[in-house]
Amino acid sequence: MITVALAKGALLKDSVRRFAAAGLDFTALLEPDNRLLMVPSACGTARALLVRNADVPVYVAYGQAQLGVVGYDVLREHRLPVAQLVDLGFGGCRMAVAVKASSGYRRAADLPPHCRIASKFTACAASFFEALDLPVELIHLTGSVELGPITGMSEAIVDLVATGRTLRDNGLVAIEDLFHSTARLIGHPLALRLDDGALRALVERLEAASRAPLPA
Amino acid sequence: MITVALAKGALLKDSVRRFAAAGLDFTALLEPDNRLLMVPSACGTARALLVRNADVPVYVAYGQAQLGVVGYDVLREHRLPVAQLVDLGFGGCRMAVAVKASSGYRRAADLPPHCRIASKFTACAASFFEALDLPVELIHLTGSVELGPITGMSEAIVDLVATGRTLRDNGLVAIEDLFHSTARLIGHPLALRLDDGALRALVERLEAASRAPLPA
Repeated sequence: MITVALAKGALLKDSVRRFAAAGLDFTALLEPDNRLLMVPSACGTARALLVRNADVPVYVAYGQAQLGVVGYDVLREHRLPVAQLVDLGFGGCRMAVAVKASSGYRRAADLPPHCRIASKFTACAASFFEALDLPVELIHLTGSVELGPITGMSEAIVDLVATGRTLRDNGLVAIEDLFHSTARLIGHPLALRLDDGALRALVERLEAASRAPLPA
Repeated sequence: MITVALAKGALLKDSVRRFAAAGLDFTALLEPDNRLLMVPSACGTARALLVRNADVPVYVAYGQAQLGVVGYDVLREHRLPVAQLVDLGFGGCRMAVAVKASSGYRRAADLPPHCRIASKFTACAASFFEALDLPVELIHLTGSVELGPITGMSEAIVDLVATGRTLRDNGLVAIEDLFHSTARLIGHPLALRLDDGALRALVERLEAASRAPLPA
């Protein structure tokens, strides 16, 4: 039995489509009244765990799921021992430094030393500003990071930007990208090594499905 | 202008009621179509920041809000420099160790040394098991912690239990409590010290309102 950890939220619909294209039907997860966290595939040969984005690599690292789908941003933030197998291509967004549009900062290097940066991704932010050799004070928030500059708590934020609408709605502007993120297929290294072929075949079908455009 | 940080979710409705009883009307926050994160009180003398539970003490610690309402569980988990002012009494729940009902463990001390414990509250769990002198491996999850024992990733969980329904629905049972939690009014220490009386008066009105039963 193959277990797959899928992330709730923005990546779920496309994750389910990709697995469907690779022969595993988890569409039950998409039903609006689904409350189950563990759902068998229609064929009965696999099951999906529905977990938070940040928890996907945890279930895979501990081997409770052999495969998982998660944003690259999570892999960069929480470095866990999982194998990155396929760039699935969907869920594109960028990790960016954003400031108040009225602030006058146009690059991250313009920010004053020892200024405050609010982020859900403080590990990513820390390595970015270390590489810039700009000392900053990081403030870890768990949501609505755009309130940092609005309330005056922080000079800037580091956050995921997809359409940029949340930034615009809050009078913020992205000034520099840390990296681009997409959904990734990850695997438990030992499960891959001990695989009798079924896992490898599934990964290959998912890889092939990622080269084809997503069905509408 | 007094700024108050309020937690989204389960504590919000009662928080707004308490502030209403103390003379500050933030009912605009309860409207189902409210998307604003910063809402002025009806009288215009104060404003509320609507943030995640775990972020309330951050805004108060940095002085962006002079007051905040947050669960005691969050204060225990993220030790930030805020003043605990009033036990508001609502939002009661307990932090508990839970295991599979079929497991046979009846106390936390029955758990095998070096077993795995999944939790969103790994700091609380760490100090509890340290006090028991029971070495455990903590696995940090951000949601649906009950999947830990179900998937076999962990022997037990440490999580908030309110009605116990989620545990029952997942075949789990609470075996030991770490502490009881309720909503707390917290304050920024410096704002309290520099207060000209307005903040103190509001805290006293909230304290009085907490001794009265909540209106239905």
